[in-house]
Amino acid sequence: MEFRDVVRRRRMVRAYDPERPVPTEVITRALDHAVRAPSAGFSQGWDFVVLTSADERDGFWSAATGAEEQERMDSWLRGVRTAPCLVVCLSDKEAYLDRYAEPDKGFSDRSEARWPVPYWDVDTGMAALLMLLTAVDEGLAGLFFGVPPERRERTLAALEAPPDRRIVGVVALGYAAPDRRSPSLRRGRRPVGEVAHRGRFGRPWSG
Amino acid sequence: MEFRDVVRRRRMVRAYDPERPVPTEVITRALDHAVRAPSAGFSQGWDFVVLTSADERDGFWSAATGAEEQERMDSWLRGVRTAPCLVVCLSDKEAYLDRYAEPDKGFSDRSEARWPVPYWDVDTGMAALLMLLTAVDEGLAGLFFGVPPERRERTLAALEAPPDRRIVGVVALGYAAPDRRSPSLRRGRRPVGEVAHRGRFGRPWSG
Repeated sequence: MEFRDVVRRRRMVRAYDPERPVPTEVITRALDHAVRAPSAGFSQGWDFVVLTSADERDGFWSAATGAEEQERMDSWLRGVRTAPCLVVCLSDKEAYLDRYAEPDKGFSDRSEARWPVPYWDVDTGMAALLMLLTAVDEGLAGLFFGVPPERRERTLAALEAPPDRRIVGVVALGYAAPDRRSPSLRRGRRPVGEVAHRGRFGRPWSG
Repeated sequence: MEFRDVVRRRRMVRAYDPERPVPTEVITRALDHAVRAPSAGFSQGWDFVVLTSADERDGFWSAATGAEEQERMDSWLRGVRTAPCLVVCLSDKEAYLDRYAEPDKGFSDRSEARWPVPYWDVDTGMAALLMLLTAVDEGLAGLFFGVPPERRERTLAALEAPPDRRIVGVVALGYAAPDRRSPSLRRGRRPVGEVAHRGRFGRPWSG
């Protein structure tokens, strides 16, 4: 699909056809795009744990959601639990601190204060976006959602992942089923003329 | 261009043809894609300051780089200063805390401890990636780079931006000139079989 059509068609989908698994080739293509995301110093401090069986996904949901949400089984959770594939996106801060302690970068103190923003999380988020766009390109749909901090430890343990990783978010993938439009969209998209500025902040970009 | 070709062709370019400005329509298209990035709760806490004139760009470089780098004028800086267009990408944490304090989200304490990662930075990074991909789609090139924390205050002041914004990074745009391959690339790309895991961490994804 043309790049611009992929960008325009992408939206977060919150319900999937549970009978249609994501073809393995599509998952591999999404991962192949994910590893082409940019990363500071080419650190590539990211990992992606792909969950496709019902057991794997149930294990994730038990760890990542509280008893409260599970009992309530609110409409959000009921919808996203239909996703046949979950890709848990982990960032590895240590890989960045190690990379930038090398002689060509010279942050040998490994201080986090040298970093304007946590590029380990930003870069991993870029990789997640490439997977979401790949889903659209392949005729599927996706959702990106976070895991609450109080569920991080349990979720990493369920995945047998090192406890120092951060869960940047989860990409759900599948064939879209009819879903409820997110109420957040009522806020409306901020127009380019409001978010983009010409030359200095506050002078609207007018094209 | 096909989405997958855009993803495969994208790379960071560190030298530009200074005689060829970026057409205004291309900048507008990049911004139009940027505002289609996903954002938590549709918060859209981002701003993009576009610098196209030599004066605007010089002001940025004076604020964002130290006297040391400027005197040395190392090859990195000499290269990227040829970029005819810079888009400074700012994140707005307060917009996210405000959004999530609304009744449907309920984080009325506005505590940052509720956030697993700073989605204000992650989402703004996704918007930056959409601009980089748009450059490739339009036959141009781009670079994403950060501003050191000790230069943040001066840089925001030079842009007349609110002092609470974070500079997630800068997207340089232009027509590529021959550049030196980044030494970081010698590290090699981590293969999918190493970064992607099937079912649990440590079991390689093999397609």
